[in-house]
Amino acid sequence: MASTGSKNLTAIMAANSAYAETFNKGDLPSPPAKRFAVLTCMDARMDPAKFAGLSQGDAHVIRNAGGRASDDAIRSLIISHKFLGTTDWFVIQHTGCGMATVTDQQIAELLRDDLETAEHNGECWLNPQRESSDNHKPGSDLAESICWHTIGDLHQSVLQDVELIANHPLVPSHITVTGLIYDVQTGLLSRVSA
Amino acid sequence: MASTGSKNLTAIMAANSAYAETFNKGDLPSPPAKRFAVLTCMDARMDPAKFAGLSQGDAHVIRNAGGRASDDAIRSLIISHKFLGTTDWFVIQHTGCGMATVTDQQIAELLRDDLETAEHNGECWLNPQRESSDNHKPGSDLAESICWHTIGDLHQSVLQDVELIANHPLVPSHITVTGLIYDVQTGLLSRVSA
Repeated sequence: MASTGSKNLTAIMAANSAYAETFNKGDLPSPPAKRFAVLTCMDARMDPAKFAGLSQGDAHVIRNAGGRASDDAIRSLIISHKFLGTTDWFVIQHTGCGMATVTDQQIAELLRDDLETAEHNGECWLNPQRESSDNHKPGSDLAESICWHTIGDLHQSVLQDVELIANHPLVPSHITVTGLIYDVQTGLLSRVSA
Repeated sequence: MASTGSKNLTAIMAANSAYAETFNKGDLPSPPAKRFAVLTCMDARMDPAKFAGLSQGDAHVIRNAGGRASDDAIRSLIISHKFLGTTDWFVIQHTGCGMATVTDQQIAELLRDDLETAEHNGECWLNPQRESSDNHKPGSDLAESICWHTIGDLHQSVLQDVELIANHPLVPSHITVTGLIYDVQTGLLSRVSA
């Protein structure tokens, strides 16, 4: 029996083969046609091309857990402007984000004890129940040294990240940075203002 | 006249309004249905949902400049497994990536002198030509302290990032990590093996 891993690879390669058969975007230029970039969450329910109306070639799309202004997201935005000319950036976080259900400290504790997928009992996250003989690989104190970018208040998180990006010393002051919240239940974007 | 910034915002909100009118994904669960995650580049020409056949709800999508295994991408992957149960991860970098046209040292030098968009003269990147009276905001030495994750050899970059992720102390050993290269001229994915 194929593992989940190889099943997913097989499905991806089959979908890709069909995609390539009618592919006609081979001459798109590298710089985004609409000169903007989107920073949003990795959440599986969100498709930025669909909810923001992006065609291939239009815009850079940066995604991570939470859609947060991590150092790496800011690295990507600086590259986006410095080498590919975007001048207009959108930070889009969302309702129902898993990053708002846990704190950095809780993540560190859960990972220190067990690396396997936690379960949510309606109130909090718990590590999976195991027999003591299970061969699990507990995490190290490394988890405590990582900034997990959890979200306390969604509105504040968007505003804080917009400010962090706009005030970064390697970001020119003429770049526009706009904060938005995506509602996973309605598909609607709304603008976040201070 | 509207700035590029507000024009893009207006276009995004109009597209989003149309999207929300027929939105029917409000009850999708948060954990990815296909239990996998994709790490790929922010490149505007690439739409992972299309080239990998993803439907909304299927998979996490993490994107940054280069599709590199940065600390933040690994943070997102660990969250993806620990809280949302993915067990199968794909690292997808691509041909024609801007990150392969420059070195970390060159990025630092270009940013130190000028934050505005560089031009490529066919051989190398150059800062924009300015009158000495221009009010530009030169970067600081900060750029030299940042890992820009530029790419020397594409094949090696994918392999190196797959290894980095698979061997991370907070990644369980049963997670499968597969390296792929996306060809921007054909739309085809190909698997990268050591």
